Amino acid sequence: MFIGDIVGQPGRTAVTQYLPQVLEEYNPDLTIANAENAANGRGLTPKLAEMLFDANVDILTMGNHVWDNKDIFGYIEDEKRIVRPANFPKGAPGQGFTLVRAGNVQIAVVNLLGRVFMGDYDSPFVAIDQILEEIGDASRHIFVDFHAEATSEKLAFAHYVDGRVSAVIGTHTHVQTADEQILLHGTAYLTDVGMCGPVNSIIGMKTEQVIQRFLTQMPIRFEVENGPAMLNAVCIDLSDTGKAVSIERIHLK
Amino acid sequence: MFIGDIVGQPGRTAVTQYLPQVLEEYNPDLTIANAENAANGRGLTPKLAEMLFDANVDILTMGNHVWDNKDIFGYIEDEKRIVRPANFPKGAPGQGFTLVRAGNVQIAVVNLLGRVFMGDYDSPFVAIDQILEEIGDASRHIFVDFHAEATSEKLAFAHYVDGRVSAVIGTHTHVQTADEQILLHGTAYLTDVGMCGPVNSIIGMKTEQVIQRFLTQMPIRFEVENGPAMLNAVCIDLSDTGKAVSIERIHLK
Amino acid sequence: MFIGDIVGQPGRTAVTQYLPQVLEEYNPDLTIANAENAANGRGLTPKLAEMLFDANVDILTMGNHVWDNKDIFGYIEDEKRIVRPANFPKGAPGQGFTLVRAGNVQIAVVNLLGRVFMGDYDSPFVAIDQILEEIGDASRHIFVDFHAEATSEKLAFAHYVDGRVSAVIGTHTHVQTADEQILLHGTAYLTDVGMCGPVNSIIGMKTEQVIQRFLTQMPIRFEVENGPAMLNAVCIDLSDTGKAVSIERIHLK
Amino acid sequence: MFIGDIVGQPGRTAVTQYLPQVLEEYNPDLTIANAENAANGRGLTPKLAEMLFDANVDILTMGNHVWDNKDIFGYIEDEKRIVRPANFPKGAPGQGFTLVRAGNVQIAVVNLLGRVFMGDYDSPFVAIDQILEEIGDASRHIFVDFHAEATSEKLAFAHYVDGRVSAVIGTHTHVQTADEQILLHGTAYLTDVGMCGPVNSIIGMKTEQVIQRFLTQMPIRFEVENGPAMLNAVCIDLSDTGKAVSIERIHLK
Ligand SMILES: [Fe+2]
Ligand SMILES: [Fe+2]
Ligand SMILES: [Fe+2]
Ligand SMILES: [Fe+2]
Ligand SMILES: [Fe+2]
Ligand SMILES: [Fe+2]
Ligand SMILES: [Fe+2]
Ligand SMILES: [Fe+2]
Repeated sequence: MFIGDIVGQPGRTAVTQYLPQVLEEYNPDLTIANAENAANGRGLTPKLAEMLFDANVDILTMGNHVWDNKDIFGYIEDEKRIVRPANFPKGAPGQGFTLVRAGNVQIAVVNLLGRVFMGDYDSPFVAIDQILEEIGDASRHIFVDFHAEATSEKLAFAHYVDGRVSAVIGTHTHVQTADEQILLHGTAYLTDVGMCGPVNSIIGMKTEQVIQRFLTQMPIRFEVENGPAMLNAVCIDLSDTGKAVSIERIHLK
Repeated sequence: MFIGDIVGQPGRTAVTQYLPQVLEEYNPDLTIANAENAANGRGLTPKLAEMLFDANVDILTMGNHVWDNKDIFGYIEDEKRIVRPANFPKGAPGQGFTLVRAGNVQIAVVNLLGRVFMGDYDSPFVAIDQILEEIGDASRHIFVDFHAEATSEKLAFAHYVDGRVSAVIGTHTHVQTADEQILLHGTAYLTDVGMCGPVNSIIGMKTEQVIQRFLTQMPIRFEVENGPAMLNAVCIDLSDTGKAVSIERIHLK
Repeated sequence: MFIGDIVGQPGRTAVTQYLPQVLEEYNPDLTIANAENAANGRGLTPKLAEMLFDANVDILTMGNHVWDNKDIFGYIEDEKRIVRPANFPKGAPGQGFTLVRAGNVQIAVVNLLGRVFMGDYDSPFVAIDQILEEIGDASRHIFVDFHAEATSEKLAFAHYVDGRVSAVIGTHTHVQTADEQILLHGTAYLTDVGMCGPVNSIIGMKTEQVIQRFLTQMPIRFEVENGPAMLNAVCIDLSDTGKAVSIERIHLK
Repeated sequence: MFIGDIVGQPGRTAVTQYLPQVLEEYNPDLTIANAENAANGRGLTPKLAEMLFDANVDILTMGNHVWDNKDIFGYIEDEKRIVRPANFPKGAPGQGFTLVRAGNVQIAVVNLLGRVFMGDYDSPFVAIDQILEEIGDASRHIFVDFHAEATSEKLAFAHYVDGRVSAVIGTHTHVQTADEQILLHGTAYLTDVGMCGPVNSIIGMKTEQVIQRFLTQMPIRFEVENGPAMLNAVCIDLSDTGKAVSIERIHLK
């Protein structure tokens, strides 16, 4: 089970509101969520991380907003349940993947950033090769949250690792795509899982503020929108060998 | 009925293969398709345009690749069934919107480009205001193909014109999104309709070539992939007043 | 006389320290300075603007950082000696050009932003045509601060207006270029005049902080560097008809 | 002696026309030139490389246009006098630095690409550390052609390697900057050396074509401009220990 970018208070509300029924229905061995926008749309705090762990999320992944909230710097070093993008330059705080017991297997959870329209990170293609070598025999069940903008980079990455990881699920655009599939060599794929956040908003932010920025080109600061929230997630079933058996999109509001 | 970016030979095949059954099932008053990638992935030729009109597509929209094939320059000036992005600087060949009779109403078909991660076009927000003023009372049924990359810009544009146009459907990413909805004031919206093209490809292009470009950062030229094709489209129902009544995604392969 | 981007305290110090001798040596009819970075590297305040006017700067131009300091919003509406980029969307506070008496002529001072690697502003090419029409016979002496990144856009703009304005001087890169020239039809041109700010710095900012951001890709906040300051400027001589007679770079430290 | 981006026929003419007198005046131990635009503005051919070697250029460096002309692929593998950017992903043809005998010392010539506004290359900061380790004691005289757009990245890179290399000279913008200096720890620096190419042009290309692209936003193909040419270069004097003693800009037309 993987839950898309949790955006601010409404995103957290969506998790507490909808996750119990989702967990009951799907009964997943492991629940992962992207938390790069959990704190007011920008980054994550230790307190909010604990809140999400208490809500039965097992592992948190991040994205380009990982360092927006400075409170996370020390915490992320010690907390093995948080994974930040692996392709930051060497020396960044925290870890790029983690191994976790789920059901009767070890699952590796990896977080990577795309570069197209994003930033000057290390190559996610080189990084995944290194990570897979590092994981070696420790796990055959490998989940990748690929946090990226361009559909071309997301699809290229997924085909590059097809058969070598269990799932590549995209995040960052905050809009769920409808292209869930199992690639030719057994990797589950979805271009973007979508966000957890306010339904009537622009990718989680106040509609009026975002429109004003487009109209004026002035540096208007965005705030998280209020109102009813939605949860976007994806449920993936894996075989004992780590191949994907099924992938199903979840959208609740 | 709106059909997403038709990519090369497989995209055209998808149209000829699946469109007849779609038209029979939905019986739309008007069929529009984005043809910016119809000619080998780059632009459109007069011959291919005629082929698509013969396949019962009524109107063709374009995108950032509109000028990739030079054969279109003269043709687009005279052919009122082709609409190129309206927010090119004044003086560009062709037209940014067209009025067409469909059922018993006049429908305006508009094509606009986003700017985020795209190019230095005129503001699509300013352009739509001018176009709506120009259309005036000539039509209450207004369809917009908003060809853009960023989900934020697509959503912001849709909310900006909500209630003033009948539908805003995104193109360009070539991946269908799952967020079809009717906005608060009656505008049908989908972030991206997805492409018509080869199923096993990277947004229509050969998987190996795209991966190689990401791996090597060398200027590898992309060719359209072969193999089985899919059609992505969306069907929108409008009331007499031009408000959207329903929106349904179509995905055939 | 045109003085490049004044960066923070060291930039202001450079002005107070070097400007008196420059004014004495060159005795210009008009002294213009770019002040987009005057307030801690980000924007301008009314108080700092007054300080610069007191230091015998006649007109202040701005750039992409114009709105960074909110204190300027109201002030810029009333203060006719401050010019912000003219190619912001209609409705932005302030003015895109101003007319000022200098010697026995009216000089028009224009500020424009480039778009390449910059932002989604209106076209500076379209904007200058409109401004020149608006100016009409009111002035034949027209100075343009073209605030842009790409050398191609700066040169293209200058050639586009060659013979129609008196001078196009670039700002924004903070590094003075050595290509001062009078173009074929009489417009004085320099790709970038350079900044006024700390000598040992990275475009005005603390060397260690900027290097750390490149090394870590983390969102380190930059502060203005301390230490000895330099002044970069350019002196242009115009004929009665508004053609450039000479252009000379100034670099003091 | 380092000569900036040689652009097409006029650039090659500038070299044959002005280099003899420059070599006579300065009598350098080593002459390096950037040749990424030598073949019609796009890449380099073996024949043109030989022509430049015959004109007494010892070493050729490249840039982002290195792969534009396919004829270079095999040649660059064997020709140790051509250096392509070192921070392409592993496996790229050719070499990122070379060692050459000059006077009585070994000089290392390095070529690196910036990433800001450029492309998704490997980090030039990481790359230079690896290269310096690889060079080890083989040379204390190290010249870097840093091919980049942003002044911030060029200055940051130079300060990062200050005292560890002999010179960092920028290329790519095609406009010579006026900030030649020796940094605090002995590295000679110039943000951009400028190009060798047609005087009346936009960074080497036909003025009318570049202006038309900015005006129309259509994909107009650029051709190298004709007419009188200029040479931009820089002469650096090094001590026995590899520290810079002097740096002088050269501009001939
Ligand atoms: Fe996010
Ligand atoms: Fe993100
Ligand atoms: Fe397309
Ligand atoms: Fe497109
Ligand atoms: Fe500045
Ligand atoms: Fe600036
Ligand atoms: Fe170049
Ligand atoms: Fe270049």
